[in-house]
Amino acid sequence: MRLFPPLKIQGRDIFIQIRHMCLMKLKGGLLVIDGKLLMIPGPTMVPERALQEGSKQVLFHRSTEFGKLFAEVNEGLQYVFQTQNPVLTFPAVGTGGLEATVANLFSPGDTILSVTTGVFGERFATIAKNFGLNVYKLDFPWGQAIEPDMIKKQLEQHSEIKAVFVTHNETSTGVVNDLVAIGKILRQFNVLYVVDAVSSLGGIDLQTDVWDIDVVITASQKALMSPPGLTFISVGPRAWEAVEKAKLPKYYWDFINARKYLEKKLPQNPYTPAVTLIASLNEALKMMREEGMDVIFNRHQRLAHAVRKGVEGMGLNLFAASNCYSNTVTAITVPEGIDGDAVRKIMSEQYNVVVAGGQASLKGKIIRMGHMGYVNEDNVLTALQALAAALQDVGYKGHVEDGLTKAKEILG
Amino acid sequence: MRLFPPLKIQGRDIFIQIRHMCLMKLKGGLLVIDGKLLMIPGPTMVPERALQEGSKQVLFHRSTEFGKLFAEVNEGLQYVFQTQNPVLTFPAVGTGGLEATVANLFSPGDTILSVTTGVFGERFATIAKNFGLNVYKLDFPWGQAIEPDMIKKQLEQHSEIKAVFVTHNETSTGVVNDLVAIGKILRQFNVLYVVDAVSSLGGIDLQTDVWDIDVVITASQKALMSPPGLTFISVGPRAWEAVEKAKLPKYYWDFINARKYLEKKLPQNPYTPAVTLIASLNEALKMMREEGMDVIFNRHQRLAHAVRKGVEGMGLNLFAASNCYSNTVTAITVPEGIDGDAVRKIMSEQYNVVVAGGQASLKGKIIRMGHMGYVNEDNVLTALQALAAALQDVGYKGHVEDGLTKAKEILG
Repeated sequence: MRLFPPLKIQGRDIFIQIRHMCLMKLKGGLLVIDGKLLMIPGPTMVPERALQEGSKQVLFHRSTEFGKLFAEVNEGLQYVFQTQNPVLTFPAVGTGGLEATVANLFSPGDTILSVTTGVFGERFATIAKNFGLNVYKLDFPWGQAIEPDMIKKQLEQHSEIKAVFVTHNETSTGVVNDLVAIGKILRQFNVLYVVDAVSSLGGIDLQTDVWDIDVVITASQKALMSPPGLTFISVGPRAWEAVEKAKLPKYYWDFINARKYLEKKLPQNPYTPAVTLIASLNEALKMMREEGMDVIFNRHQRLAHAVRKGVEGMGLNLFAASNCYSNTVTAITVPEGIDGDAVRKIMSEQYNVVVAGGQASLKGKIIRMGHMGYVNEDNVLTALQALAAALQDVGYKGHVEDGLTKAKEILG
Repeated sequence: MRLFPPLKIQGRDIFIQIRHMCLMKLKGGLLVIDGKLLMIPGPTMVPERALQEGSKQVLFHRSTEFGKLFAEVNEGLQYVFQTQNPVLTFPAVGTGGLEATVANLFSPGDTILSVTTGVFGERFATIAKNFGLNVYKLDFPWGQAIEPDMIKKQLEQHSEIKAVFVTHNETSTGVVNDLVAIGKILRQFNVLYVVDAVSSLGGIDLQTDVWDIDVVITASQKALMSPPGLTFISVGPRAWEAVEKAKLPKYYWDFINARKYLEKKLPQNPYTPAVTLIASLNEALKMMREEGMDVIFNRHQRLAHAVRKGVEGMGLNLFAASNCYSNTVTAITVPEGIDGDAVRKIMSEQYNVVVAGGQASLKGKIIRMGHMGYVNEDNVLTALQALAAALQDVGYKGHVEDGLTKAKEILG
């Protein structure tokens, strides 16, 4: 009858000892690439330390042990969000964080201004429309950044606007928007400042409190170098006032309930949290605190600069305008006569480097290289080498070596 | 400037080799208990094979490799759901699955009947109310099962009812409801049959297709012996018709969009899925297919029987009525004069076995022992021994040894 006799091991046996011996080697950081090097704009590769923490046995979510872990996570989140606001954690990916924000801040018929520069700005606007909000859209050409003065005009014309949605870093076009300049405009009006920072937070400076941003949304699987499945939302005092009045339906996304559980002596979640993902995240956040935000932002800036100069050195054009290059993802225009999808296929299959293509109207027209989270000089050079080799393989005649030389000079 | 020099390792180094050597030992199933034995009604302990699969490097969610993995997962889900219907996967926990169901099946003002036998039935009803549905409630006393004839009366009186919500296994009271008997009633009316099977599916027989259930909701962290963070929803043909007409707001939970991505040549998700959790789940589902559903259900039945006889043998009473004992969780009434929370504290701190207390009005009045998912005879005996010892420690005078003897006889 014992058809299911798992070998039960209490405490530390040889297997666990070996695993822990291995882990001791990892304290300085180790990236294990089982197969291919992921250079996509998320999910990003997760350091071994974080993967291993997430592979420990599941904790009871109402235990002291989990409470202590979650308290550490919340401190770490406030550190990377640069905020004293509560940062709420939901078991969901970033799109869930956007939906949660809409459901918690508004009532049916409320009006918002959605400023879009690409796919993810569009998605945020669609969610708002689906939930019955009146949505003014201010669309900028893809590849361009937001012009803050245009927002001012909209706000002057439409006093009913309650909130402005902005994408900090538009993952689909490799564009970063100037949150400080936008904030200066918004603070002249009585509107909530809501920022989708899914592909920026932790890689590009975002000072939630200093810049006085009401709501900032991000997720685990990009610059926070953790596995996907968690979304985080920082909610400031003005936003909490809106939350108290909001009438859109919700239960799972309920901010007030989430805050109530967060404020317990040891923080908890209203329902079962994704405990293993939270354990991974905690380790990733520790690593970020060890490195320090300024060093992290400089690293992203430097790697992004090398990618851009490398790509341009190969004779390729960058898709984004030169005043708004993202430091977490670079969109590369595929040259006339070259098949972008063929380049990506060769990069992946021949050279084991995975990059992303364009989305929506940019399908086939751009290649997007992610360089955020747990990424270093070697990774960037490997990715550029793979790009150069694949371009040559498809018959591209530019001097790809010049780009590699340029990138190496920068990374020196 | 290289302040962040992670050691990058391509392919298989010594660390990986050791990890894989370890893994080879795990094929038959291994439970590593780092700290305490979790005998709570979720999250449950995850076999090492599944934890290790989830600790592999993150995959690109639009890659062939992930598509193949997700195809396997979808087959495995249909196997455990006993259905040919598509089973949708969302990055969320079970409460999200309940919310998704409400948002996708209904329009504001629709009427449902929520049949409740405890905390989780109440939660499902609250979600429906929050979303603006008219909710008739049919409440049964906690510890009792649903009487199907009472549902019939409600349906006869209220022809506007579009769906009936039933909790298969009420985690808060240790009660299982008779889905076959309920289904026979429901099929006499034009209503959707919606079942919350979060704490039963995979541990207690639930034949989605044979029993003609329109929507079945479960989650990863209970009998499916995977880490928390995924919810699954089987949607049948009648339910899809309702989905097409439903007007409640959603984007993240959109069933139609989820199905569209599921039906690609290699299945995908509309947005980033929780790839590491899906990898863990895939391994757990493989283990379940290796064991076979009938064997799994028999194992749960046998272990639950041993727990019940053990507890009764100690002179304690079961909280649930004798016609509706759950095979995944047992609620034990705390005897007069005994402090249930003190018993649980001693079990955890002195004997390293974690059980749960009562929720809501049952707080302090019951102890709930989970025995679902990756659980075996040793675990159950260990838990009963811990219970017996803790009871003695707080001065309980019953013959706890008799209970242990009884349980050992059954498991013999």
